Amino acid sequence: MENRKIGVALLGLGTVGLGTYKVMKAQKEEMLYKTGAQLELRKILVRNKEKAASKVDEPEIITDRFEDILEDKEIQIVIELIGGIEPARTYIEKSLQAGKHVVTANKDLIASDHGALMDLAKANQCDLMFEAAVAGAIPVIAPLKQSLAANHLTEVMGIVNGTTNFILTKMSQEGMEFDEALAIATKLGYAEADPTADIEGLDAGRKVAIMASIAFNSRVSFDDVTTEGITGISANDIRYAREMGCCIKLIGMAHSDGTAIEAYVAPMLIPQDHPLAAVNDSYNAVFVRGDAVDDAMFLGRGAGELPTASAVMGDVFDVTRNIVHECNGRISCTCYKHLPVLPMEDVHSKYFLRVEVEDRIGVLAEMADVFARHRVSVEQIIQKQKKGDSTEIVVITDKVREGDFRKAVRCIADKSGTREIKSTIRVYTV
Amino acid sequence: MENRKIGVALLGLGTVGLGTYKVMKAQKEEMLYKTGAQLELRKILVRNKEKAASKVDEPEIITDRFEDILEDKEIQIVIELIGGIEPARTYIEKSLQAGKHVVTANKDLIASDHGALMDLAKANQCDLMFEAAVAGAIPVIAPLKQSLAANHLTEVMGIVNGTTNFILTKMSQEGMEFDEALAIATKLGYAEADPTADIEGLDAGRKVAIMASIAFNSRVSFDDVTTEGITGISANDIRYAREMGCCIKLIGMAHSDGTAIEAYVAPMLIPQDHPLAAVNDSYNAVFVRGDAVDDAMFLGRGAGELPTASAVMGDVFDVTRNIVHECNGRISCTCYKHLPVLPMEDVHSKYFLRVEVEDRIGVLAEMADVFARHRVSVEQIIQKQKKGDSTEIVVITDKVREGDFRKAVRCIADKSGTREIKSTIRVYTV
Repeated sequence: MENRKIGVALLGLGTVGLGTYKVMKAQKEEMLYKTGAQLELRKILVRNKEKAASKVDEPEIITDRFEDILEDKEIQIVIELIGGIEPARTYIEKSLQAGKHVVTANKDLIASDHGALMDLAKANQCDLMFEAAVAGAIPVIAPLKQSLAANHLTEVMGIVNGTTNFILTKMSQEGMEFDEALAIATKLGYAEADPTADIEGLDAGRKVAIMASIAFNSRVSFDDVTTEGITGISANDIRYAREMGCCIKLIGMAHSDGTAIEAYVAPMLIPQDHPLAAVNDSYNAVFVRGDAVDDAMFLGRGAGELPTASAVMGDVFDVTRNIVHECNGRISCTCYKHLPVLPMEDVHSKYFLRVEVEDRIGVLAEMADVFARHRVSVEQIIQKQKKGDSTEIVVITDKVREGDFRKAVRCIADKSGTREIKSTIRVYTV
Repeated sequence: MENRKIGVALLGLGTVGLGTYKVMKAQKEEMLYKTGAQLELRKILVRNKEKAASKVDEPEIITDRFEDILEDKEIQIVIELIGGIEPARTYIEKSLQAGKHVVTANKDLIASDHGALMDLAKANQCDLMFEAAVAGAIPVIAPLKQSLAANHLTEVMGIVNGTTNFILTKMSQEGMEFDEALAIATKLGYAEADPTADIEGLDAGRKVAIMASIAFNSRVSFDDVTTEGITGISANDIRYAREMGCCIKLIGMAHSDGTAIEAYVAPMLIPQDHPLAAVNDSYNAVFVRGDAVDDAMFLGRGAGELPTASAVMGDVFDVTRNIVHECNGRISCTCYKHLPVLPMEDVHSKYFLRVEVEDRIGVLAEMADVFARHRVSVEQIIQKQKKGDSTEIVVITDKVREGDFRKAVRCIADKSGTREIKSTIRVYTV
């Protein structure tokens, strides 16, 4: 077999960068047999050259000048693992304009600029791949674009943030409150010093934007995705959920009937017999529904040095095969529709509502009346434990319009007998 | 967009054939945007033309002569959905020799002739794809060859037969014995009139051969795969398994340390917290472990008209993209190693053994002694319920060589105090 070499550059040598470096080394020999070519790592771009030099076997290829990469004609593939919007966007744009293919794990950038970057890649007959930007090691983008391409997909949803899944698993299995579970996640390195992007659902929201774009062939940006985090979930909510045969998971949801798209992140009650209910700790999983495939689920590691590198290098192998067979751009942007993203008030969900009210006769009837006036159909109203002159009421609605439900809840909140709206959580239904 | 047409022929119009016909129609318009070309279904090969004519909108394209397809120069893709070895093999060979790409769902054929057919495809610069031959709708072959290509995989195993999973689920959830659960499966159409291929593990064995070949880059044929079915599993075994925090699943196992391959089908005790334990009814799931990806699992429908067609048409889309971009053969045979498949006696497993013995002092000690003499390390020996002058003993071994374990069990069977070897079942361990 001819020993064809393809020049490659690595931008960034953080956790995923170093993982990618390791996997590239581990596959050095076998790659030739799998793809028909080998990689030659020609440059690694870092900010701090001294710090990086100790991490690799070839300190001489480390640079802090992006121009060194751009000007190297032998470099055909640029692997962007810096993260964040700038300078990553500029580097990717310049690479594509120079005819270099790009593989990236950058969810921030792809979630905001997916369309423009794909257009630029196409204009330059380049590949732009980003499997690692969604759900880490789990193949999601490739199956959606290829194996499941002959489907009209109606739903792509799942657990796409490991930090919050770890926290909810702790709360569920050990009865902890949110703050306690977050402290453990931070101590174990699952949560960052500033955990906002994870616990408020922003990280998951970026992944929803990318998944929705691919699944429904229509561009969805992070700005289109409504996000709700898990800071309001209490051990009590989880206990009530369990009584109803459910667990609570932070779900990234992308749904479409073919005319519009629903895209949001929210904690949800998931029935215990749903495959997602068994996805615990820091695992991620993406659940897919389509007219031919029916239901399918992909589960695995959503983050980490080597798992994310597995996805990055899978894309690099794919680009390499395209170079060998001269078919780069073989699968370019698949967004050929222009579907609107529904405002949240027009999204339909089933709801779990927990309210603390004054313990007196007629409270249940009043609440039922409020829902009826707002066209919110109710499946059950249950009176729970009493505390002094207060009592807790749990309401489960049918699938209702969110705008109507919110108005009804505001109306209930304003009632003199209402002490506190404890929680409103969506309930997953098919 | 240019309206490029690619001629296609369908061989067979049974369940999967008709499903593929339907999915092809459903994707008629969108396929152009997704792949850059549209399909033109030019011929459907059937045995009974009259019967087939009522099933399709274009009875004029139905034929019972394969030569009509072979001679039609416009047909670039042949979709083989007849199943079985002949005439399917001859049709596939002739199609490839005529330069036509082939997509097939034929697990019998691919499991026995994978290597020879891939060689023939390569020699003719044709694609030969068979995603639907393993685990129905679930993307397995494509992720193994692409997204997970940058891994040294050590294990690909799972639940790859829906009939037996349905039976075991019924036995587990409702305490049924095997015969009763099989009768229900037959009544509901999950089991065929002759269920041998399913319940004896032959169907799963074919899928193991294919998965092992792809995962370990070394040709494994169905003849290399040892199969053990579920006819010997009793409701009692399942109850004992549950006491130990496990369920029993029929597992198709392909394992490799890089020097040899273990490939077999057997019922196994699976810990309740393993993702496969939650895969119930007729669902299939494939679990993968690699040096970079860590653990991943793919779950979905393992059979059925539209789910299987989803996989078939996913391959057809892929071939179409290759035709459009002139890169057929882009991913050809990936078996470049020559690893031996271990004989079963050299495979190492943890075992669950249940024996009925005479109820007298010293029986446990004798049994422990037999295991020690055969180098079988024992994790626990438990004496269970007594019945008259009999008692049941359950033994859990460590991970031991199968040959040693089998000899020890034969020795125990020959002892005068032994009434019956009730069951020997493997216990899944990492």
